[in-house]
Amino acid sequence: MLRTHTCGELRLEDLNKKVTLAGWVQRVRNKGGLIWVDLRDRYGITQLIFEEGEADAALLKRAGSLGREFVVQAHGKVIERTAKNNKIPTGEIEIKVSDLQVLNKAKVPPFIIEDDTDGGEDLRMKYRYLDLRRNSIREKLHLRHRMMQETRKYMDLANFMEVETPVLIKSTPEGARDFVVPSRIHAGEFYALPQSPQTFKQLLMVSGFDRYFQIVKCFRDEDLRADRQPEFTQIDCEMSFVEQEDILELFEGMIRHLFRAVKGLELEEVQRMTYDDAMRLYGNDKPDLRFGMTFVELNEQAQDKGFNVFDSAELVVGICAKGAADYTRKQLDELTNWVKRPQIGAKGLVYVKCNADGTFKSSVDKFYSQEDLKSWAEKAGAAAGDLLLVLSGELDATRKQLSELRLKMGDDLGLRDKSVYKALWVLDFPLLEWDEETARFHAMHHPFTSPKTEDIPLLETDPGKVRANAYDLVINGVEIGGGSIRIHDRETQQLMFSHLGFTEEEAQSQFGFLMEAFEYGAPPHGGIAFGFDRLCAIFGGSDSIRDYIAFPKNNAGRDVMINSPSSISGDQLTELSLAIQRKKD
Amino acid sequence: MLRTHTCGELRLEDLNKKVTLAGWVQRVRNKGGLIWVDLRDRYGITQLIFEEGEADAALLKRAGSLGREFVVQAHGKVIERTAKNNKIPTGEIEIKVSDLQVLNKAKVPPFIIEDDTDGGEDLRMKYRYLDLRRNSIREKLHLRHRMMQETRKYMDLANFMEVETPVLIKSTPEGARDFVVPSRIHAGEFYALPQSPQTFKQLLMVSGFDRYFQIVKCFRDEDLRADRQPEFTQIDCEMSFVEQEDILELFEGMIRHLFRAVKGLELEEVQRMTYDDAMRLYGNDKPDLRFGMTFVELNEQAQDKGFNVFDSAELVVGICAKGAADYTRKQLDELTNWVKRPQIGAKGLVYVKCNADGTFKSSVDKFYSQEDLKSWAEKAGAAAGDLLLVLSGELDATRKQLSELRLKMGDDLGLRDKSVYKALWVLDFPLLEWDEETARFHAMHHPFTSPKTEDIPLLETDPGKVRANAYDLVINGVEIGGGSIRIHDRETQQLMFSHLGFTEEEAQSQFGFLMEAFEYGAPPHGGIAFGFDRLCAIFGGSDSIRDYIAFPKNNAGRDVMINSPSSISGDQLTELSLAIQRKKD
Repeated sequence: MLRTHTCGELRLEDLNKKVTLAGWVQRVRNKGGLIWVDLRDRYGITQLIFEEGEADAALLKRAGSLGREFVVQAHGKVIERTAKNNKIPTGEIEIKVSDLQVLNKAKVPPFIIEDDTDGGEDLRMKYRYLDLRRNSIREKLHLRHRMMQETRKYMDLANFMEVETPVLIKSTPEGARDFVVPSRIHAGEFYALPQSPQTFKQLLMVSGFDRYFQIVKCFRDEDLRADRQPEFTQIDCEMSFVEQEDILELFEGMIRHLFRAVKGLELEEVQRMTYDDAMRLYGNDKPDLRFGMTFVELNEQAQDKGFNVFDSAELVVGICAKGAADYTRKQLDELTNWVKRPQIGAKGLVYVKCNADGTFKSSVDKFYSQEDLKSWAEKAGAAAGDLLLVLSGELDATRKQLSELRLKMGDDLGLRDKSVYKALWVLDFPLLEWDEETARFHAMHHPFTSPKTEDIPLLETDPGKVRANAYDLVINGVEIGGGSIRIHDRETQQLMFSHLGFTEEEAQSQFGFLMEAFEYGAPPHGGIAFGFDRLCAIFGGSDSIRDYIAFPKNNAGRDVMINSPSSISGDQLTELSLAIQRKKD
Repeated sequence: MLRTHTCGELRLEDLNKKVTLAGWVQRVRNKGGLIWVDLRDRYGITQLIFEEGEADAALLKRAGSLGREFVVQAHGKVIERTAKNNKIPTGEIEIKVSDLQVLNKAKVPPFIIEDDTDGGEDLRMKYRYLDLRRNSIREKLHLRHRMMQETRKYMDLANFMEVETPVLIKSTPEGARDFVVPSRIHAGEFYALPQSPQTFKQLLMVSGFDRYFQIVKCFRDEDLRADRQPEFTQIDCEMSFVEQEDILELFEGMIRHLFRAVKGLELEEVQRMTYDDAMRLYGNDKPDLRFGMTFVELNEQAQDKGFNVFDSAELVVGICAKGAADYTRKQLDELTNWVKRPQIGAKGLVYVKCNADGTFKSSVDKFYSQEDLKSWAEKAGAAAGDLLLVLSGELDATRKQLSELRLKMGDDLGLRDKSVYKALWVLDFPLLEWDEETARFHAMHHPFTSPKTEDIPLLETDPGKVRANAYDLVINGVEIGGGSIRIHDRETQQLMFSHLGFTEEEAQSQFGFLMEAFEYGAPPHGGIAFGFDRLCAIFGGSDSIRDYIAFPKNNAGRDVMINSPSSISGDQLTELSLAIQRKKD
């Protein structure tokens, strides 16, 4: 090794040791005859000292000429600092340097390599290797490392086998777009990159593997949004001979283990809620339970009093913001404008202030008496000092709008503390959802999810009402995992495909191997997959997954550091039996 | 759970417990009023018993109608067996079944699902999910699972951070062919799948990650040979501030840990040998050290005695097969024919038998006296009863031929015991190797490998003689890992690219990001990568990697189970701005 110790490990008890350190120059302070250098590596910072008289002139000169981010090796003796720094673990000592080698020089970095950097997003992506030098970023990737190790420990102890499924698989038109890989040997044919190992993990259950997991890269060729990546990582799991309850318990255990092992945190009991309740109470299938502010339906109280907006609405629904009755006219106007933005799409906002003296002040005072408003407040459990915010209109749209407003109020009132974690299972998802664009039903989860046995007859009469054996794990309003009990017999799987609009031939050519496998003794099975990037971000208290990925792509799916994607040679294209054929605009 | 216990866990101490088991029907023995069913799952086999009088007629009938591989759930009581089976851990008990559900039927499998199967390779690949049901295959994948977990434990303890590098990267013409992935958003541009995360792991060192590892899928679009897969898995590692010796020690430790943890085996000291010695003594850069039979160069002893074949040879070299002097004329003729096959390419084979009476019998008796032959035997350390086998010709070719013969003799004489493990570091590889086809030097390892400092001047005068800071780990004649100390400064990297025939523009466009990174404070670093599939096969005592991969491709790179690669739709092609353009034959 080019060092005897790291820059994070020397302490007072190492006094007088002869040591060799290696690392990066973080800072040089040059007082003429006295030079201090902060030497940094992954493990910490240690101060080097060069003193006139003690160090020879050449050494002093060399130390004085060091630039930021130079890589150096320093030999010296551990001494006690006169001015101690109790902010860092090595702050009681320094190294009196007797020899110094520059292992590599460094140009001046294009941005400051500290937690608080002056580098913009684009610059930091181009020089990602320098961005990764910043402690704050490296710590995020260290968290990710720990999450991976602890996930595997838990799964291994629970008898799950880690099995690598193939990356070069087959394209299926269902769901999001596949990335494809042209085959050179089989001209005109393509592999596809997996959107998930779904069919393979189900085959492993047919194989009797009993418990499978994998932390695995998946791929989706989507039009990218702010927080999507074309390649992402899943914790992918599947179990045989289980019922939904078994999966909920086992993976609640996994999340609990991760909080304990990685964050030293004891997670409260994971709550449970049906999809219907989540939509009714929070207008959202991934409610943030760090705060209440549940929906209060006011149709009965608010309709037939002459206020046409409410009278004509399918739903009148409000939330009670505790202690917000002192919102000013200006604040309320801002909220109204906020919900009327096209992104939210509400027509307007009705408020009711519960005054300290027991009276009410609302934006619809001319339609409603104090008694009327009191009945709203009572329904909402509002007390003096609280503020009711009410929206109305078509049911689904209004719920969606109020959900957005609820989250905004949670933010405004400081109720969404990033250090608090509230986990929730959302259960009984619908099996199918209607897609306006294609005018047919799509699988809400995926086509392998089983319907609840008692709802199967509804498939023929009212498909939208069929509930699935499907569940999502939500933490702080973010969906971090989802899964289902699968179909495990050919007949039900075929029925499902036909309800999804597959012809028999299409079902056979795309998923024939799976349906055939079901005929050779497939056990009942189910599973779950967690979005690992997002899980890491949640654990790190961040909204963005990008910092938790070592080399992310930008919003255009481009790696600006290596400049990819890029053109390939004509020879390569010829070998692949391909030609570029630009779309006509 | 649909079971209270697995099929592998019940023992005599569980007597009289009410249990529920679930699994696959391995075998049914029906003696009329008495039916036994072997129920199998991943954990073992438990015998179910159905007895007339005890079980009702309907239950007995249901048990009698079970077919192979049916999936069933059985409720019953643990009782002691009258006829115990000490071959399985559950052999002292059986389950007196009180109720039985068929969870799923099974068609008759296309081959027998036992260790000894009647299924051919092609059939087993098409129904891989049934092949994976066989214990012998599942155990191989369980070994792989354990290897992964133990590798990570060791690396984590040694402070390595597991970092996922991207799968969608950039195509580089150096080395093997890349698989490419057309970008839909950036028409006419392509990502490539990584042949290894080499440049990314080096960038992580520039980032100060200090110690990186990953168990990662890599991809090579090669014309497939028997034991190659288009996608394969590596244990990929890199460290900063290290010298070669540090890497050898750390990864010898890893291999030692794996043998101990996975096989309960204490690995002997890992030997070390230079590349030159390996070629001189074994004719091979990955010698199998489970047996000796080192090369003995006989030019001095065998030339200038009138035997023109030897006289005109660059090298006369032999091996001593201990105790093989009793090889018959027929056996020796077979050996001669074997070395003369085009795959080996020798012109002939000279043998010398060391007889029990101290005389010698050779195929070249007319050219050599007993004294001559005695001098050969002495040089070779051959004793009475031994057999010398001698080849001659051009140096490299002859070494290669004799290496093949040595391995064959090792096999024939039973010296290559699969339960014995001999590990070896091969050191001081050449930096460059001459490629006849392109008439230029190629990097023997890869272009990022550093030359030995003292050999750098030779780059201008005798490039083939330059030694690299490169090393391979070999176990039982199989290369399982290789690595090097890398170049970490722009100048040396540029020099290297120019010696490999890159123009400055080519080097810049392909690896400019890496060379630029080297200018911002790159630490000295080095690393290693292990072929994980092969490592698992070696640990499993197998020559073939395919059984250690859950869903392998066949020799044509095809997954015959899911039928991939396959054609994609015209719409997909249009979206990707591509057209199929078949090569003209």
